[in-house]
Amino acid sequence: MNEQSTAAMDVALAYHRAWTSHDFDRAMTYIAEDIVCQAPAGRLAGADAFRGFMGPFAQMLTRSNLVAAFGDDEKAVLMYDTDTVPVQDAPGAECLTVAGGKITHMRIIFDRLPFEAARRAASTGEAAGGE
Amino acid sequence: MNEQSTAAMDVALAYHRAWTSHDFDRAMTYIAEDIVCQAPAGRLAGADAFRGFMGPFAQMLTRSNLVAAFGDDEKAVLMYDTDTVPVQDAPGAECLTVAGGKITHMRIIFDRLPFEAARRAASTGEAAGGE
Repeated sequence: MNEQSTAAMDVALAYHRAWTSHDFDRAMTYIAEDIVCQAPAGRLAGADAFRGFMGPFAQMLTRSNLVAAFGDDEKAVLMYDTDTVPVQDAPGAECLTVAGGKITHMRIIFDRLPFEAARRAASTGEAAGGE
Repeated sequence: MNEQSTAAMDVALAYHRAWTSHDFDRAMTYIAEDIVCQAPAGRLAGADAFRGFMGPFAQMLTRSNLVAAFGDDEKAVLMYDTDTVPVQDAPGAECLTVAGGKITHMRIIFDRLPFEAARRAASTGEAAGGE
């Protein structure tokens, strides 16, 4: 893993360590109230919307590994692997803007296709099971 | 865009500028013969396999914008927006390992879901059109 300490990266990594260790409440302490998050499904505005998106993902996490982390005073980019309950090997990348010790903007990229496939398989299985 | 010049990033950005300016042959001059690329669909080994994956994507490109680029002597991470013929707003992230001026490893993350949806819509349209 590549890591250089910068103002933005310190916050980005603190956030990352919190959510990947299943302490999502602590992770949220690094999120600005007015965060804007550009996620694969669209734009999320505000900490509550962000929690609604990222919280359930963090709950599904079974393993994570930081691949790279770089940054400067204002921005950091993290890339990581995760395994989750529905999908193994689900990497993600985030570009985070930090101001006043809080993450004010996050662009997050991951592949939704295997999650969609797992969701469809689960709903087919439920239908077949009759429950 | 955040940009710091480092050995790995110089190569990563030269590669990026080449493929986003539709000069894929030039882009390939930065790719090691024995590159290993971890793409959303799986592992690609060797420059020919890499060209077969990335070349068609580069051909579909209609616009690109570099969001962030960071790196050190060995690794660089790029995040970018692209618009493509089938999908608008298709961001990607790459973690590139560079040795001897060539990219020897690339981890690339993007969301396949909108590309899959576009492919399905196109094949449905073709079937409906009878061609």
